[in-house]
Amino acid sequence: MARRLAEQGIAVDIYTRCHGQGGPQVAEIGPRTRLIHVQAGPCAPVAKGDLPGLLPDFLGGVLRYASAGDGRPHRHSPYDVVHSHYWLSGWVGSRAKQIWGAPHVASFHTLGKVKNSVLPPGDPPEPHLRLAGEQHVVSRADRILAPTPAEADHLVRLYGADPGRIRVIPPGVDRELFAPRPKDQARARLHLSTARLLLFVGRLQPFKGPDVAIRAVAEAVAMSPEVMRDVMLAVVGGPTGQDHDHDEVARLMELAASIGVSDRVVFFPPQPHDRLADLYSAAEAVLVPSRSESFGLVALEAEACATPVIAAAAGGLRYVVVDGETGFLVEGHDPRDYAARILRILADPGLATRLSAGAQRHATRFSWDATADDVRSVYRELVGRDTRSR
Amino acid sequence: MARRLAEQGIAVDIYTRCHGQGGPQVAEIGPRTRLIHVQAGPCAPVAKGDLPGLLPDFLGGVLRYASAGDGRPHRHSPYDVVHSHYWLSGWVGSRAKQIWGAPHVASFHTLGKVKNSVLPPGDPPEPHLRLAGEQHVVSRADRILAPTPAEADHLVRLYGADPGRIRVIPPGVDRELFAPRPKDQARARLHLSTARLLLFVGRLQPFKGPDVAIRAVAEAVAMSPEVMRDVMLAVVGGPTGQDHDHDEVARLMELAASIGVSDRVVFFPPQPHDRLADLYSAAEAVLVPSRSESFGLVALEAEACATPVIAAAAGGLRYVVVDGETGFLVEGHDPRDYAARILRILADPGLATRLSAGAQRHATRFSWDATADDVRSVYRELVGRDTRSR
Repeated sequence: MARRLAEQGIAVDIYTRCHGQGGPQVAEIGPRTRLIHVQAGPCAPVAKGDLPGLLPDFLGGVLRYASAGDGRPHRHSPYDVVHSHYWLSGWVGSRAKQIWGAPHVASFHTLGKVKNSVLPPGDPPEPHLRLAGEQHVVSRADRILAPTPAEADHLVRLYGADPGRIRVIPPGVDRELFAPRPKDQARARLHLSTARLLLFVGRLQPFKGPDVAIRAVAEAVAMSPEVMRDVMLAVVGGPTGQDHDHDEVARLMELAASIGVSDRVVFFPPQPHDRLADLYSAAEAVLVPSRSESFGLVALEAEACATPVIAAAAGGLRYVVVDGETGFLVEGHDPRDYAARILRILADPGLATRLSAGAQRHATRFSWDATADDVRSVYRELVGRDTRSR
Repeated sequence: MARRLAEQGIAVDIYTRCHGQGGPQVAEIGPRTRLIHVQAGPCAPVAKGDLPGLLPDFLGGVLRYASAGDGRPHRHSPYDVVHSHYWLSGWVGSRAKQIWGAPHVASFHTLGKVKNSVLPPGDPPEPHLRLAGEQHVVSRADRILAPTPAEADHLVRLYGADPGRIRVIPPGVDRELFAPRPKDQARARLHLSTARLLLFVGRLQPFKGPDVAIRAVAEAVAMSPEVMRDVMLAVVGGPTGQDHDHDEVARLMELAASIGVSDRVVFFPPQPHDRLADLYSAAEAVLVPSRSESFGLVALEAEACATPVIAAAAGGLRYVVVDGETGFLVEGHDPRDYAARILRILADPGLATRLSAGAQRHATRFSWDATADDVRSVYRELVGRDTRSR
């Protein structure tokens, strides 16, 4: 989005925590676009639970860099608009707004109260600190961007957000990267040339439902071994980085063995984007049985690759997937319901072709150009004029 | 082995703990061969650390069944020989020997003191209870079977075993199941038809060195990207069932990502034997970088499928792999040393063919018929006559 905004003449500084992936402290990542690494805690990955404690240092780093970048004490804000994404950044944005007097636009990626409302058994709830942080940001932000009407509704009902300050702006998908590739070539590059592939992509945690995907394969094999003859499920994704999820891969392997599909399921570590596009293109269908999604980017990426999606009818997925047109929306998480949809797609080439075309068509509605246009008009509302260029 | 002994007229009762996999309490698994499930603790899998506490109940169950099976109080032992495998069974065998006055033959699978002597960083040592249990069994058994001279040496040096009571008898390999299969067909069944495959098979724990295998692939790519162009590593195996190893899969995925080979490594859950034979047959080489192995069954199974093995020169692997003839033995665990051998095999089809033939030839030396013959003669030494039939 920063790239699209820059093309429209809007300069963007992106602040992120130094986490030790190398590169300069300040990188020009495009015309008018800088990526600034702020030191807060070690320049290394830290556990998710340790991040809140680093926020004051992070804020200090942002304030210092913003004032030094300008070379003089500020009479007014170094930025026209502060835009934060996720509640941790929201905390920083909210304080920067106070200090600088600049308007603050917040978006959330996911909402803690929504996650807690659909918590799978055994998963620890999101901590009070996060919920309070989100509440703080929601109450004070000038505008809140929600990716779908479902999240707008959550913001109002669960956090008491002022509906007049919410704007619904879906993200886009990079349709140059995520475009249909010939299935045979994609399969060959993946060295999976003879299998019919089902795909799960996502962090491996119960919240995303990888267990539902594996059980659905077993159910489909039981219902129709002939249709499932050469079908494999590729589970693509790594651990979440949170302790309680760290052995989820092991649990999924044990699950696959215990229900007799260890010869049907293969696990890939998190894949680079280019390989993901091959995986989406090679797949007959992508399974997204999440408990909830603010948006559902995996579903959209799959659709952009012309691959039907079988998704839970939850949160943003209701907008990204159109039931019967780009794939199927499934109420709940009963593996048999997912299995039935898998078999329909695998057994009916005509249906598969129609869904594939529908998926690709639907994906064209989500573009970063449109997103950047919408975001820019939100900025304009706040600044009262076009945002300045440099 | 029970099947082979039964073919020679020796009746075998095998006692195992009921762990809830179904089936009758007593199953006739072949002529003169019974599998007897003894209840000790819940009829369900239990953590490895909980097994020692169940041994007294298990012993009680064995004694009860053995006397009831006969229907009368015993004047002499219900069995001519008690044979135990692994130290937990050894504890039971040792006490049965005392009670019944029957000779006891013990074998160990692995030895705790050997594991502790090559402990990878961060791995907890084998508990004192195990070491003491092994010591008890070694001191009292009438015969100890070691799979290789290396383990015989460990038994004498580390446990003070009487060399006169040790017999070296390697296990066999099922050469009907593990036989070379056409590479193309095996690859097609695995849906991996276009990749050149490297293979790691084993429980995922640092002791087995799966990290060394993944790092070796990265080193080989760095040394010779052209040779490694279409090469993938399949890591086949699940968690050990021990808590401290349960997130090893996740750690390995993170390792693959951090050294840039997430597009080269794919993880399979534990596979059924028939699929394993396909995997061995499809592979260009099998990597066995274990810290130690009493024997090295994976290496032998691979050789039986005519696949060269690149193994650590550790323990039993020194006997199962012949350096330069059936593959390569590597001193230590430096991934670069394994990478160099991988590249030699991949880049030199003549060498690969020679090693493949050598591997298959060497594997013919390990047969269950020969093992059963050797075990039977040990029984004969103890009973002083041929063991009775029923």
